[in-house]
Amino acid sequence: MTDEFNLLQPQPLLIVISGPSGVGKDTVLQRMKERELPFHFVVTATTRPKRPNEVHGKDYFFVSKDEFARMIDEDELIEYAIVYSDYKGIPKQQVREAMSSGKDVVMRIDVQGAETVRKLAPDAVLVFITVEDEEELERRLRERKTETSAELALRIATARKELLRVEAFDYVVINRDFHLDETVDAIRAIIAGEHLRVHPRKVSL
Amino acid sequence: MTDEFNLLQPQPLLIVISGPSGVGKDTVLQRMKERELPFHFVVTATTRPKRPNEVHGKDYFFVSKDEFARMIDEDELIEYAIVYSDYKGIPKQQVREAMSSGKDVVMRIDVQGAETVRKLAPDAVLVFITVEDEEELERRLRERKTETSAELALRIATARKELLRVEAFDYVVINRDFHLDETVDAIRAIIAGEHLRVHPRKVSL
Repeated sequence: MTDEFNLLQPQPLLIVISGPSGVGKDTVLQRMKERELPFHFVVTATTRPKRPNEVHGKDYFFVSKDEFARMIDEDELIEYAIVYSDYKGIPKQQVREAMSSGKDVVMRIDVQGAETVRKLAPDAVLVFITVEDEEELERRLRERKTETSAELALRIATARKELLRVEAFDYVVINRDFHLDETVDAIRAIIAGEHLRVHPRKVSL
Repeated sequence: MTDEFNLLQPQPLLIVISGPSGVGKDTVLQRMKERELPFHFVVTATTRPKRPNEVHGKDYFFVSKDEFARMIDEDELIEYAIVYSDYKGIPKQQVREAMSSGKDVVMRIDVQGAETVRKLAPDAVLVFITVEDEEELERRLRERKTETSAELALRIATARKELLRVEAFDYVVINRDFHLDETVDAIRAIIAGEHLRVHPRKVSL
């Protein structure tokens, strides 16, 4: 066997789970963790206050706004976004460490962020989670009932725009209601298939 | 949802299962059939005589040498090869019909034939079945005990050469002894992942 490709020690992959607001990205990630799949899940840094049930370093890295500003200044974040006046971002160092552990690295990121990751790491595997159709997306956003009607309209308009961004992704998975495990299995098949490529992706950050 | 990509009615794929002599391609196909996976398996045309346990149209299409010559002349075969003075080939028409049924089409073909398919159908999914290392391949070829030592040496030399052709394939799967179902599961993951691509392959023949 030649060494031109590496059959036994596949390179870890960087897998980005993304998709419009309302498609259930968090629930998908949650189920992946519950099923104890052999992935390293990236923890996001945030400036919002820790809630009682949350654990620093597990749910989020809780950092001050000063610390977050420093991370932006020193280019330590893969990408960041402002979410309801709080900052959220993914530390590069964390992803690098995760990948050097040899495990595949999974991160959840919004659609715009995913496209930023593509620029930084062209060999990342970009998975777009979506729903059957726009009506279903609207229904899910309405069900949250956490927003005023103006905020809801804004969310729906944004999600509609985000749906169109699927073209920039590698894979698309429909997250059907009550079929969460199928969604997770589809993501696993994508990852398994990627590891069997003769010419594997080589992610560097 | 836009119509730019087709989420609900994925195009059928043309999947080529190939690899050097001795890696167990036939056994892999056999197990895929036993597990009743929802694929259409292509039947090869051959000029060799039918054995008692074989069924025309299921195991092979048994055709005369005259008929086979006509098929070659009229460009009706995707590719063909001479195997121990008998001819084997895959009728194009059969693959076309299979693909129009909407099912994924699976065909087993030798390494050289797979490269011919790539030229005819660049969007075919080429899967290279292999073993852990060259020693294992030699061991398996020796175990067959069906050849003279000169024939065996020829087989081994050919198989070694074929191992180097992996670079022309899309995916590589190691068919480990006593792990046949893992091999089949790997092929299924590859196919499932391909169906989730945002930009699907479009096979035409």
